[in-house]
Amino acid sequence: MTPPTHTTVAVVGGGPAGLLLARLLHQAGIDCVVLEHRDRTYVEQRQRAGILEQGTVDALRACGAAERLDREGLVHDGVELRWNRRSHRIDFPSLTGGRRVWVYAQTEVVKDLVALQLADGPPLLFKAEVTAVTGADTEHPVVQYTHQGRSRTLTCDYVVGCDGFHGVVRKAVPEGQLQTFERVYPYSWFGVLADIPPSCDELIYAHSPRGFALHSMRSPTVSRLYLQVPNGTDPATWSDKQIWDELEERFAVDGDWKLRRGPITQRAVLPMRSFVTEPMRWGRILLAGDAAHIVPPTGAKGLNLAVSDVVVLARAFTERASTGSTAGLNAYSDTCLQRVWRAEHFSWFMTTTTHTAPEHSGFETRLQLAYLDRIAASSHAAAELAENYAGLPIG
Amino acid sequence: MTPPTHTTVAVVGGGPAGLLLARLLHQAGIDCVVLEHRDRTYVEQRQRAGILEQGTVDALRACGAAERLDREGLVHDGVELRWNRRSHRIDFPSLTGGRRVWVYAQTEVVKDLVALQLADGPPLLFKAEVTAVTGADTEHPVVQYTHQGRSRTLTCDYVVGCDGFHGVVRKAVPEGQLQTFERVYPYSWFGVLADIPPSCDELIYAHSPRGFALHSMRSPTVSRLYLQVPNGTDPATWSDKQIWDELEERFAVDGDWKLRRGPITQRAVLPMRSFVTEPMRWGRILLAGDAAHIVPPTGAKGLNLAVSDVVVLARAFTERASTGSTAGLNAYSDTCLQRVWRAEHFSWFMTTTTHTAPEHSGFETRLQLAYLDRIAASSHAAAELAENYAGLPIG
Repeated sequence: MTPPTHTTVAVVGGGPAGLLLARLLHQAGIDCVVLEHRDRTYVEQRQRAGILEQGTVDALRACGAAERLDREGLVHDGVELRWNRRSHRIDFPSLTGGRRVWVYAQTEVVKDLVALQLADGPPLLFKAEVTAVTGADTEHPVVQYTHQGRSRTLTCDYVVGCDGFHGVVRKAVPEGQLQTFERVYPYSWFGVLADIPPSCDELIYAHSPRGFALHSMRSPTVSRLYLQVPNGTDPATWSDKQIWDELEERFAVDGDWKLRRGPITQRAVLPMRSFVTEPMRWGRILLAGDAAHIVPPTGAKGLNLAVSDVVVLARAFTERASTGSTAGLNAYSDTCLQRVWRAEHFSWFMTTTTHTAPEHSGFETRLQLAYLDRIAASSHAAAELAENYAGLPIG
Repeated sequence: MTPPTHTTVAVVGGGPAGLLLARLLHQAGIDCVVLEHRDRTYVEQRQRAGILEQGTVDALRACGAAERLDREGLVHDGVELRWNRRSHRIDFPSLTGGRRVWVYAQTEVVKDLVALQLADGPPLLFKAEVTAVTGADTEHPVVQYTHQGRSRTLTCDYVVGCDGFHGVVRKAVPEGQLQTFERVYPYSWFGVLADIPPSCDELIYAHSPRGFALHSMRSPTVSRLYLQVPNGTDPATWSDKQIWDELEERFAVDGDWKLRRGPITQRAVLPMRSFVTEPMRWGRILLAGDAAHIVPPTGAKGLNLAVSDVVVLARAFTERASTGSTAGLNAYSDTCLQRVWRAEHFSWFMTTTTHTAPEHSGFETRLQLAYLDRIAASSHAAAELAENYAGLPIG
């Protein structure tokens, strides 16, 4: 099939943001084409987030993409915090008026959305490499890309960059038109997948003098664990035993909890960054998800922010299609940035409250412990964490 | 009158902590002597804090030291926050279940306590300079001091250091016995007193791109104003007009609020520090107030922490006097440090959320604004601020 040469919305990037946007536009009867640089296998297997907010699940359900999620996803009503060998559970439903989160890997969300789109959706081209985006300051921007060895051109009304932090769409905006805000953290996450049932039913965020650790899971039989490590750590230099020993130390708690050990099947070191582009639009280029903003993974906001961006964007395109008004598109950046900065603050807060930093003196460590004590003592402090974690309403 | 040579509790320092402790001990029938390095005029005039928490007022009332406070103190049911030309009021009673604060200067608290003590209280010696504290690891420590040109000795059961950050009592503890935690901020407060009625009924904490500003008051006719300035600023280099112009810029808000200008009668630049000593006891030396901990002034916790320390301490001495048990004294440090670290965190939070720092990038400024937005949007975030500001229960 020859790809179309014109569409209403050219979506660059076939991750969860681009795929969900395409699904929402398709349901609203709006033409689009999704161009993904990588192949299908790669896209379906890259390990990313695994926590879906209430609002994300609602959005996936509303567009018919939650059938397997509702069957296989693990509903979590809380998380556990650990510090100073004590622990405290944050109960989401009681603190937020009934909101909760789902453990369901981003890879699975992507598989579900790819399958739907290939079955009945708009064109989704894998291995389609965008080489230029031009004319964003006109009514008909042009996306040039290569696909199956040929150079192709796609004209459109709007280009949406869902192509991540390193994507090409943001870079197509002329210099000086976007303001960027950034913070790079002095530590990384060493993440491992292990073929062992999780050692607890909920996630554990652990503050320890040795650094942060997170116990998470991908399924009832696969554990996902993270250790704070110095930037530049080579994951190959750690033995499996060292990893389990270090995790055990960091999760240490009074009581009889035990960390289950099992074969480690994947390992990677992930740098941590906060990043925001303002505005999230220039001319007829719109940016969504990681192309516009990055959060450190503590607090699990990245995927959920991408979803809320495209939900807002799909509403705006739908308004334009049905009424001709571009008010929603004009408000897109301001609407999203409110939520983006809220999530940036929360992610920074969760990160800096639980990680030890090389520049920390004992004073900063005591402040962290004092705030963790406060969360355990104050329903307001706990509710503030729960509301942000389970996710604020979209839009 | 010759000062006594023995007492139960030797109180070093005649600021609000030492004076209130003496009053509480006196009421419990426990002997004490207060030794104050400065003269009465100096003590009664040094400008310090001016916000009393609910718990502080309750403590002063309970010991009969609130007669003038109840007549002249200004009850405040809230504070105003300003940022981005918008404002938001935090209502204390509705967010805290009825707690509030009083504007009543520390100088006035001190005058009231001095007058009570000189009328019917235990000995209070001005210009009594402590030269040594020895024997704190025995049952009878010895305080040596000079008074009216003579060297004197006071033996006691306990020595309480209420003599501030630079005091001698903490320094009498052998090296290595106390752990200290400290943070010095890269900015100071330039405080002025002005003979002009306050420009608003409540305090205003203002975030501005030009730096923090605080509008406060000492009485219905005297305004107290603060500007964030670089460390090392010489107050003499600012004209009155420059001060008012800068204040006006930083308080700028949409709407018709106007800053009243008047004659500036006092000016001083105050450095900002966080500091904690652990534990707050060594042998028979006990530390209270600024001798044990310092907070930056944002959030008005310093005086109130000193009061809660001595309330806890007086209870412990009373328990020992009535039952012989030293359980309360043994728990003193741990009991107080819980509250101290809560206040340290809150003071650090209030400071770093509202001040611009030289090392800040735009990212940190946006995080501040995002959190201020959150306080305006979330009753939990607002209540968390209100509870801490109006003050947590003592002990």
